Amino acid sequence: MQKIAIIGGSGYTGRELLKILLKHKKVEVTKITSENNAGKKIEELHPELFGCYDLRFEKYNWQTIKNNCNIVFLCLPHAASMNFAKETYDSDKIVIDLSADFRIKNIPVYEKWYKVKHTQVELLKTAVYGLPELHRYAIKQAKLIANPGCYATSIILPLYPLIKENLITDNIIVDAKSGVSGAGKKMAMPYLYNEQNENFMPYNPGTHRHTPEVLEILGIKNLTLVPHLLPITRGIISTIYCTPKQGLTQEKINNTYDKYYKNEKFIRLLKNEIYPQARTVANTNFCDIGFKLLENKLILISGLDNLLKGASGQAVQNMNIILGFDENESLS
Amino acid sequence: MQKIAIIGGSGYTGRELLKILLKHKKVEVTKITSENNAGKKIEELHPELFGCYDLRFEKYNWQTIKNNCNIVFLCLPHAASMNFAKETYDSDKIVIDLSADFRIKNIPVYEKWYKVKHTQVELLKTAVYGLPELHRYAIKQAKLIANPGCYATSIILPLYPLIKENLITDNIIVDAKSGVSGAGKKMAMPYLYNEQNENFMPYNPGTHRHTPEVLEILGIKNLTLVPHLLPITRGIISTIYCTPKQGLTQEKINNTYDKYYKNEKFIRLLKNEIYPQARTVANTNFCDIGFKLLENKLILISGLDNLLKGASGQAVQNMNIILGFDENESLS
Amino acid sequence: MQKIAIIGGSGYTGRELLKILLKHKKVEVTKITSENNAGKKIEELHPELFGCYDLRFEKYNWQTIKNNCNIVFLCLPHAASMNFAKETYDSDKIVIDLSADFRIKNIPVYEKWYKVKHTQVELLKTAVYGLPELHRYAIKQAKLIANPGCYATSIILPLYPLIKENLITDNIIVDAKSGVSGAGKKMAMPYLYNEQNENFMPYNPGTHRHTPEVLEILGIKNLTLVPHLLPITRGIISTIYCTPKQGLTQEKINNTYDKYYKNEKFIRLLKNEIYPQARTVANTNFCDIGFKLLENKLILISGLDNLLKGASGQAVQNMNIILGFDENESLS
Amino acid sequence: MQKIAIIGGSGYTGRELLKILLKHKKVEVTKITSENNAGKKIEELHPELFGCYDLRFEKYNWQTIKNNCNIVFLCLPHAASMNFAKETYDSDKIVIDLSADFRIKNIPVYEKWYKVKHTQVELLKTAVYGLPELHRYAIKQAKLIANPGCYATSIILPLYPLIKENLITDNIIVDAKSGVSGAGKKMAMPYLYNEQNENFMPYNPGTHRHTPEVLEILGIKNLTLVPHLLPITRGIISTIYCTPKQGLTQEKINNTYDKYYKNEKFIRLLKNEIYPQARTVANTNFCDIGFKLLENKLILISGLDNLLKGASGQAVQNMNIILGFDENESLS
Repeated sequence: MQKIAIIGGSGYTGRELLKILLKHKKVEVTKITSENNAGKKIEELHPELFGCYDLRFEKYNWQTIKNNCNIVFLCLPHAASMNFAKETYDSDKIVIDLSADFRIKNIPVYEKWYKVKHTQVELLKTAVYGLPELHRYAIKQAKLIANPGCYATSIILPLYPLIKENLITDNIIVDAKSGVSGAGKKMAMPYLYNEQNENFMPYNPGTHRHTPEVLEILGIKNLTLVPHLLPITRGIISTIYCTPKQGLTQEKINNTYDKYYKNEKFIRLLKNEIYPQARTVANTNFCDIGFKLLENKLILISGLDNLLKGASGQAVQNMNIILGFDENESLS
Repeated sequence: MQKIAIIGGSGYTGRELLKILLKHKKVEVTKITSENNAGKKIEELHPELFGCYDLRFEKYNWQTIKNNCNIVFLCLPHAASMNFAKETYDSDKIVIDLSADFRIKNIPVYEKWYKVKHTQVELLKTAVYGLPELHRYAIKQAKLIANPGCYATSIILPLYPLIKENLITDNIIVDAKSGVSGAGKKMAMPYLYNEQNENFMPYNPGTHRHTPEVLEILGIKNLTLVPHLLPITRGIISTIYCTPKQGLTQEKINNTYDKYYKNEKFIRLLKNEIYPQARTVANTNFCDIGFKLLENKLILISGLDNLLKGASGQAVQNMNIILGFDENESLS
Repeated sequence: MQKIAIIGGSGYTGRELLKILLKHKKVEVTKITSENNAGKKIEELHPELFGCYDLRFEKYNWQTIKNNCNIVFLCLPHAASMNFAKETYDSDKIVIDLSADFRIKNIPVYEKWYKVKHTQVELLKTAVYGLPELHRYAIKQAKLIANPGCYATSIILPLYPLIKENLITDNIIVDAKSGVSGAGKKMAMPYLYNEQNENFMPYNPGTHRHTPEVLEILGIKNLTLVPHLLPITRGIISTIYCTPKQGLTQEKINNTYDKYYKNEKFIRLLKNEIYPQARTVANTNFCDIGFKLLENKLILISGLDNLLKGASGQAVQNMNIILGFDENESLS
Repeated sequence: MQKIAIIGGSGYTGRELLKILLKHKKVEVTKITSENNAGKKIEELHPELFGCYDLRFEKYNWQTIKNNCNIVFLCLPHAASMNFAKETYDSDKIVIDLSADFRIKNIPVYEKWYKVKHTQVELLKTAVYGLPELHRYAIKQAKLIANPGCYATSIILPLYPLIKENLITDNIIVDAKSGVSGAGKKMAMPYLYNEQNENFMPYNPGTHRHTPEVLEILGIKNLTLVPHLLPITRGIISTIYCTPKQGLTQEKINNTYDKYYKNEKFIRLLKNEIYPQARTVANTNFCDIGFKLLENKLILISGLDNLLKGASGQAVQNMNIILGFDENESLS
């Protein structure tokens, strides 16, 4: 059994890792840290896991983790991950970082969007953007994975094949909608039940921080992203508006998607004017993709569970690839 | 007291009219029809109105309505309204039609989108599209009001001033989201609780029937509308993507909106990067408008309650105008 | 116009008072306080009220309130209200206190349940428990109203007539369920969206603080109250299990309720096995009452909006009585 | 691989079986029937299963099922199951019936509550009530399982040990709350989204059909059950009010539960005043049990997912027992 440490496990991505890895036949979680909750049992913070783990939160201590674990998931806020990753990496552990710290190769871009200095410039060079359907080969060799953003995954997966095959022009608009868990377990007024229940609203129009990683991976210059908060716990639906190049047909789009994703276990290509729904990807690691070709607009729609394919599920998928396990071990 | 008849009052727009008009000091509902529910008390179908009305649903009978009422609200499905309107109109009653039958002046366009022959071509000419903020003067003289569609209201109000003042180019994209009550009280699989709870999904991308009335009123040729179903009961948020003409500034947009809407009781111009939310317009007759100007995109966001400013509230607003009452009588 | 001050207006009861009083023809809110939000506009905290008030939160200063207002609503946490009430009362203002501080006449009972010393023993003697349907006459003369608890209102109203008429024995069980707004606008983990969405749970079984006021008003010794948190914003449904005295009939129960409540504008007696629903009392000041008589159990069900009949609506109802206005002015 | 047939697989219990069995290593679903949907692919009715099965609904035909399957799940309405079960049973297949038809041994009681004649009196004698934690040994030998009702499971499991050990008197009250999926995929007005969203209501107080199976299994005469509809998709919370016998202590209750359930994989005994929540059992096969002992009341609270431990999960648990698999194979 490979031994896992989860650093910063009090939030939703930590909880989801615990839920997934409980079903994993070849790894086990042996350490979990939380600076504010050291000493508490897992079920005190995550009551759904009552009786499932015999483990308590500890304060982070690299020596004890080093001696006990060979894979480390970092579930830390942006900027906090960098230095933890360094320590882990230097000890020859596999690090899967769920923050944004190693997603963007262009350091000035990172520093502009995240308003913090990047302190691990060398380490950043070795990091692999962990989108298995696009970077599986690099992931296999990686020791440091930058696990993609939830919105970013929902935007890159449907757009990548069309951009690579040169089927659309730029001027891409993404109207994205995420369940409230996308904000994490954050104690702030907008995330109170009464504020979001029976509500829906845009936020940060045109300025969301997942934009630069999307641009970098897609190799494009511009994209307008307007995220919205959905009154559901889990799920992202991204509605993407593109301009098709002349002569583009539905068949061509279908063929292109098949070429890239036909054998992908976790991408479902919905055809014939069936579109993704938040409900039918919730609690799965799937990214569903549908589209509608109009006269001079191509509308792509993607759906995924922001905590799974958008975070912890994809993190485990990356781990499975690195360790040579079945890619869908413990995932469904 | 003016006497009101509601034709087809078993659904949500009928219920909302009943709730609003209960507070109205100068009119009273004296007739309500439903072919399938004749004989039932109002509260049997609308339990929120328990004890509020001493009235039963009747089968439609023009003679009794004619003798008892001077204002008629038609809450009927599209295509069904036409002939009812004729009968009412000919008797010199005021008719406020909540269906689409009199919204579109261009008959082939109506017939193409609604897949039905228009049988009241003459009557259609006299109908006024009942958007008070744009057509108040015509409404005052009208005997037949075509009450606007819910999506249409949320799209036309924010776009109209910018288009009239020539501040944006075409290529407009509307990503619209509506609460489930937008579909009416319809017995169909997609409207079951378990299907839409914790869900979100697009439907009819690029082909929604409110498109032609938007084009006609705005006087534009194209607009891409993708509606989505929100897991809330009430509320529409429309996120509208436009291309600003060169030199457009935030101040100019603010001034333009002020010029058109400053004194409008039911339009709230949110400024300083505050955006509409579904929760804060629910149960009101407000249409809230916010915007964000990016480098080469202008994003407009509107919010309203689809059953009020998007249907019954606007219908009563039209009635108040026609009858010379305070425009906000019984509305809030 | 009577002038109103709202002390502690940043929460949900303050917001609801603002919404109700906006429609009131004979009073106006001229002062609103919040220690933490002084200087902010009302709409910064309550965006639903955008553009509705031209008023800012102030820090509490008795002199300015004294000179400007004749009616004071206290929307403060328990224990904080006492001394504010004293100051106001001494200046001959009308005080309507939405906290629990003046609800319980028995001081040791208050101090045991609320774990705080009561500092206004004399003032407490003058306070009237503001349940208009039971204490209208006393309310009319009162200068200090203890506005009842939300659960308490939902429990006392259905039980009072049956206990007074000696129709049931004791051993009463109340299984109560409240929407999340019952907890107030409180920044705590359990009130985060993701914690309560798609959830339901009991809390404080047998130990909820509304129990003593229920016992005191009903004049009984025991009652088992188990409150639960419902995944909705507004509404309380209380299911109450009693043991009927021998020979009790449905007709007798109906007659008893009619005797007490027949002419009450805000109590709706649902008959014929119709039961209250949270949805149909939301956004109203109604308390709906239904019941089912079984062989040796009588089940009462009550429903109300915890923020209206359970708090701010009832507070305005009390004010209307004291000031001699129509009891339902601005309420519906 | 054992071959499975699902009879009547268009609803929620059929869908859940499909989802669970997809993960099962030792069985596969090879037939699924639906009289109204023959010819459709599974994903046309259950879009969450897009791409997961290569199977279409068929009309029921015993010969083809007989030749292809050795285990049959009946997901049929009450009364419809009886005769299907007979045919299957006679062919020596294992039948797991999710309807109520074989749950009640007392035929007049069944016929009174379900208002239908029982046509399989002999077969009924061989049926085993499939509550593994109480009847594991009998289940192992059974060929016909009457899978328990969802409410019944949530009521019997917490009460059984206390009644067997004679720790409580009768006069038991159950205030039960279920998510809307408990009603099945039924096209009826009360199950529309807008009717139950933001709602909560009791139904059939004192007359719910799960009552007789509870009485029979617990061996008691009376119990008052009031079910309510919760605005969530999945989950039952039952709050159970009992009268403790003199001298009952918290420790004694804990010990009793340990005695019966300590080693039960799917029962979680929450201690120390922790109570079940709907959210933390959703999507699991757990039944969580908590309690609070007051002076002369004992309050039990149980929680489970009505579609899993309350239906399809328990059905698979029963199958695993009969076939000698790990009891939790494919369940979590």
